Amino acid sequence: MKLPVSTEWVLHCAATLAQLEPGGTASAAQLAEYFDLPAPYLAKQLQALTRAGVFNATTGPRGGFRLARPAAEVTLLSIVEAVDGAASPYECREIRQQGRGAAPPEDCREPCVLARTMKDAHDAWRRSLDGVTLADILARLPEAAPGRTRARLGQGR
Amino acid sequence: MKLPVSTEWVLHCAATLAQLEPGGTASAAQLAEYFDLPAPYLAKQLQALTRAGVFNATTGPRGGFRLARPAAEVTLLSIVEAVDGAASPYECREIRQQGRGAAPPEDCREPCVLARTMKDAHDAWRRSLDGVTLADILARLPEAAPGRTRARLGQGR
Repeated sequence: MKLPVSTEWVLHCAATLAQLEPGGTASAAQLAEYFDLPAPYLAKQLQALTRAGVFNATTGPRGGFRLARPAAEVTLLSIVEAVDGAASPYECREIRQQGRGAAPPEDCREPCVLARTMKDAHDAWRRSLDGVTLADILARLPEAAPGRTRARLGQGR
Repeated sequence: MKLPVSTEWVLHCAATLAQLEPGGTASAAQLAEYFDLPAPYLAKQLQALTRAGVFNATTGPRGGFRLARPAAEVTLLSIVEAVDGAASPYECREIRQQGRGAAPPEDCREPCVLARTMKDAHDAWRRSLDGVTLADILARLPEAAPGRTRARLGQGR
């Protein structure tokens, strides 16, 4: 069970955008340089975040990405699921209904109890990430971090 | 984020062994036929469960697999992690320390707050599966299921 490496990228990019002044943006090229990441692949992930409504993309010479909502309204779950989808990692192929042990149809009207239990666990994972916003993350960064982030992205006051 | 299809296999095999009479066993070939699964690949998974101490393997003409502990002491987490490992699906490659935005070393003595948040979610997933045992699963099966399972595996009284 693995999330793609780009999960770390988009979480850090989102946390970076959350540190900019209101209205500030950062381009895919800037963010790629900021974290030393492959720009074309990162750009695809940032576009997925935009399609999911987590980022806004602006065009023009000073265009780039910014959060579509205040940091306190952007959960880590929304970021992770924008690039990895919301599907449970457990796939139920209904093997209870196949082979010599196939359960009778009347016992299979409800989802399999094992699939339900795995779904409960996935729901617990989702609730955990739904309970943390980018504002919570920023509150746990060192005090000097946001100023440094803005300065290095050329957005100091 | 995907678990292997064999996760469903081992959960159902474990639940099946939990329905046998005390001391009863089922072989890899029996379980493969029971669920119409590829026997060699299933056998590898069952061996992983044995190495992890979830199953015992007995040899001889009536040999096979059985639970190493009472069903009430076998958690779904122990089964899933026996075949998929206990690693978090989120991989932190410390991109906070690379590129133009690299955080200073003194800010990186603690694990990254994003990695900690992702670990919290994985811990929530693990706690959920650690709170459900095979005995809980059996209690939620239709009343007739265990007798049918034993009969079809040639272990009726």
